[in-house]
Amino acid sequence: MPAIIDHEARRRELADIAADIVAEEGLDAATVRRVAEAAGASTKVVSHYFADKRALLIATYHAAAAQAHRLADASHPPGRADVRAQVLSLLPTRPAMERAWKVWFAFWGHAIADADFAAAQRAQAKRARAIIVEAMEGDARFARLTPSAREQGAREVLTLIIGIAQQAAFDPEDWPARRQIRLIDDALARIVMRK
Amino acid sequence: MPAIIDHEARRRELADIAADIVAEEGLDAATVRRVAEAAGASTKVVSHYFADKRALLIATYHAAAAQAHRLADASHPPGRADVRAQVLSLLPTRPAMERAWKVWFAFWGHAIADADFAAAQRAQAKRARAIIVEAMEGDARFARLTPSAREQGAREVLTLIIGIAQQAAFDPEDWPARRQIRLIDDALARIVMRK
Repeated sequence: MPAIIDHEARRRELADIAADIVAEEGLDAATVRRVAEAAGASTKVVSHYFADKRALLIATYHAAAAQAHRLADASHPPGRADVRAQVLSLLPTRPAMERAWKVWFAFWGHAIADADFAAAQRAQAKRARAIIVEAMEGDARFARLTPSAREQGAREVLTLIIGIAQQAAFDPEDWPARRQIRLIDDALARIVMRK
Repeated sequence: MPAIIDHEARRRELADIAADIVAEEGLDAATVRRVAEAAGASTKVVSHYFADKRALLIATYHAAAAQAHRLADASHPPGRADVRAQVLSLLPTRPAMERAWKVWFAFWGHAIADADFAAAQRAQAKRARAIIVEAMEGDARFARLTPSAREQGAREVLTLIIGIAQQAAFDPEDWPARRQIRLIDDALARIVMRK
């Protein structure tokens, strides 16, 4: 029997390796050659999966997003909406989520001049907000709020998370986990009190 | 009399041109050649002011920071601390401040892998927070708070501003000025109420 290679899995694996390189060294470092070296593969193999640098970058961006969503999903039991667990899982208090944020930062500068990446950034913010709203709908303490109060609350919380993640990335000593969590807990406490 | 060239002014002017290019097209576009073209100068002249791409980028980063500080200073009369005016002046509701934020985003990805830029990012966050704290000390409504409540309030407001600026850059339609201002006004209102 010939060995069956799962091409989709191999592609994801290479994108994950590229994401590691981006998180450590920035966007410019993630070349086909570098990814091939890190994967122990030839540049020909990597080029087979990604036609050019741009295709590699798009896959890298989505690899970081997918990993963040897996992490967030894994941090609370399915079927039990827990707004706090959901929201805290997005903070860069764990190395894997810190890595995902660093990959996104690397793309922000790039997204300024690239309409596709800018659209991906917009979609990701909307998706994150929708996930928080959905968790609120299933969480008794938030379910009593009006839909617009939940929408506004999710917007406020996501805005804080982005601001925390940016500052924590460059000044981790000034942003220990307890400080990140406290800011979010304060926000959730006051959102719960709204009508 | 020979013409006297103000070298420092010329250097700032070139860095400002580079900042425009970064805000429009990202970090990679700001080459010595591109800046020379945009300035109507030779690459030799630009190279005279900036030894290499890195020196140009450092000057570009500081040009954006300096412009943001001038904008913030100009938005409230000297000697009269007005926390709200100070804080709102940092939002990307004006084209010039939007440009400054876009330049910073471009550097965030770069700063991941560059210790000097990472240190500059840390210093800038600390400076912005100190400016907000100082405005609070001179504003009667905030002066009655404890120093730690002011410090915590400034941290919260700056975190919101960073989160707003990032989202507004990629989704300006979803972040009109009134929405940005409302989030900050809500935060200031609750900080004022603290003990």
